[in-house]
Amino acid sequence: MPPTVCRYGIMGTAGIARKNWLAIRNAGNSRLVAVASRDRDRSRAFIAGCQADVPLDPAPRALGSYEELLACEDVDAIYIPLPTGLRWQWAVEAAKAGKHVVCEKPCAASVAELESIIAACAAADVQFMDGVMWMHSKRLEPLRAILDDPATVGEIRRIVSQFTFNAPDDFAAANIRMDAELEPLGCLGDLGWYTIGMILWVMHHRLPTRVTGRMLRSGSAARGGAPVPVEFSGELLFDDGAGVSASFFTSFRMANQQLVSVGGSRGSVRLDDFVLPHVGNELEFTVSQPAFVNDVCRFDMERHDRRVAVAEYASSHPTAQETNLFRTFSSLVLGGIPDPRWPAVSLAIQRVMMACVESAERGGAEVRLTE
Amino acid sequence: MPPTVCRYGIMGTAGIARKNWLAIRNAGNSRLVAVASRDRDRSRAFIAGCQADVPLDPAPRALGSYEELLACEDVDAIYIPLPTGLRWQWAVEAAKAGKHVVCEKPCAASVAELESIIAACAAADVQFMDGVMWMHSKRLEPLRAILDDPATVGEIRRIVSQFTFNAPDDFAAANIRMDAELEPLGCLGDLGWYTIGMILWVMHHRLPTRVTGRMLRSGSAARGGAPVPVEFSGELLFDDGAGVSASFFTSFRMANQQLVSVGGSRGSVRLDDFVLPHVGNELEFTVSQPAFVNDVCRFDMERHDRRVAVAEYASSHPTAQETNLFRTFSSLVLGGIPDPRWPAVSLAIQRVMMACVESAERGGAEVRLTE
Repeated sequence: MPPTVCRYGIMGTAGIARKNWLAIRNAGNSRLVAVASRDRDRSRAFIAGCQADVPLDPAPRALGSYEELLACEDVDAIYIPLPTGLRWQWAVEAAKAGKHVVCEKPCAASVAELESIIAACAAADVQFMDGVMWMHSKRLEPLRAILDDPATVGEIRRIVSQFTFNAPDDFAAANIRMDAELEPLGCLGDLGWYTIGMILWVMHHRLPTRVTGRMLRSGSAARGGAPVPVEFSGELLFDDGAGVSASFFTSFRMANQQLVSVGGSRGSVRLDDFVLPHVGNELEFTVSQPAFVNDVCRFDMERHDRRVAVAEYASSHPTAQETNLFRTFSSLVLGGIPDPRWPAVSLAIQRVMMACVESAERGGAEVRLTE
Repeated sequence: MPPTVCRYGIMGTAGIARKNWLAIRNAGNSRLVAVASRDRDRSRAFIAGCQADVPLDPAPRALGSYEELLACEDVDAIYIPLPTGLRWQWAVEAAKAGKHVVCEKPCAASVAELESIIAACAAADVQFMDGVMWMHSKRLEPLRAILDDPATVGEIRRIVSQFTFNAPDDFAAANIRMDAELEPLGCLGDLGWYTIGMILWVMHHRLPTRVTGRMLRSGSAARGGAPVPVEFSGELLFDDGAGVSASFFTSFRMANQQLVSVGGSRGSVRLDDFVLPHVGNELEFTVSQPAFVNDVCRFDMERHDRRVAVAEYASSHPTAQETNLFRTFSSLVLGGIPDPRWPAVSLAIQRVMMACVESAERGGAEVRLTE
């Protein structure tokens, strides 16, 4: 009888892994069997904390090294929330050990690094997928249908995507996201992975032909080191701008905003919570097709908004997008045939992101991309 | 006894003047006494059309030349909806004739032109104001209070402003807005005056220090001529980007969108209809202060949105913003002391707009502005 459950190990004890502890439990076809850190006590503490909140039976094993995790015969897949600076090495090692890989974002610090991870996964015939949750929301189905409907949005012209949060005062001291060795892409890697990813998703993962990026603000870790992006904007032009243009903005110093606006020849669509959906049991977006009515001296703009919603809990639920991620990944693992579309999506995002970095380094000059 | 009514003449018969026919009637302290065109029959037809919809008693006089209008002793102020290419000459002539000037936007085709209009108005001691209606909405009072409140939006980081409409198929043939002689600034002049104006309003009319512009698409009138902007984006950096960045987008080929988002360290504000308010008797905006709540394995994003509304009809009403414009302008005229803040606002917008044009002509290179 073929296996019906994909068995996971978590490599690292980053905070986001606690969310996925719950997601793996809720997925139905997934089981967490081990958590590894370079320090077994840290693994134990992580497991104890999660067990007190969301108990698993049996509890996962606490491991004291990543090598130990890769040697586990009862682990099919590794979830890697390690810092970006360490991720490349261990993602490649995981693939070489025959493990399927769920990789946090940004997947790598360069295109070459990500290409080598993806090549290692292909050589080992294992699935690669990045850990982006929003791509697994059921909300995307009606959103795609409306974007592709010629009568609703029509031909797409402009995409805006902004994702920000205001970091606490101790961020530079307490958080690795401003450490140039661990997270060299700063807010662009942490938040821009989502904004660029959404723009590319809207565009069916076609690449823009011209890219600009601008480092609006940079900062260093409290202990020093090279500066990383703290506020970053970019513009992506598809078909040299003749078709669609897209603007994105990311910041560690603006209150949370998760705005997506897609405007087309016939109407527009807006999401207010595209990354981390607002608490509730429905995920929604708004379709706007305002109508201008002129009758001699009267000039009126009629609002025609339509709310579209899907039944899906925002988080911590079997229907939630992070749960869908692990359910989908486990299905691919259990099916035995890796889906190359997932690594292709990650690579497209990484390529655009690095082109933005190159542009910013050249003072905002346009960088050309080719398919 | 001092006069209690400001008497207007309209110079030109553009469609937008019909809206202001009604606005002048509703203002309470304003009266339309003459309409001038280069062809008296066109003036008569314009008046007949408006009288059938919104009758004035007595009906305004139909004049056959702009000179004739400027010679009218019973005209205090001229509203100039002429094409941009003709506006400069006649705005200066109006000021020289001692008439106060309400000038449609874009006010001029260059900074020098607008400076000469403003200088002529100053020399004649007459009021200058551009015809932008949204600046006269009562909605701006609570919006300003919230933007300036340290606990709500906090320090502003990012402003996005988009204003678009999808022109009909015969636009290039039937509309002057793609005629390089009459409207050399195309969509940037027609729509960007609003988007840039809103960004500057949010910033208390401080100028950005660095500006980029990008001609995403250009087009020519059906009868030929130089290309004008049909789709245009820009980014404005205040304090060299260390403080606030702003992105704007204008297009003649995207369905109507009038988006403003202002994000700050504590929250954000969104308007969906900043130029032409949606039909109704309230004008609104939304304040968002989402809260991220993390409890071990649970990661929730709580939506905290607040709708702020003011009682104001969207259009065609004594409370509407276009009516407020003429009521305010008439008050200034009747008060006898021109307010220099209005021409200063117009000049700031024109300066930023022309810097965007210069950047676009230089392939998107940054253009520096100084106060």
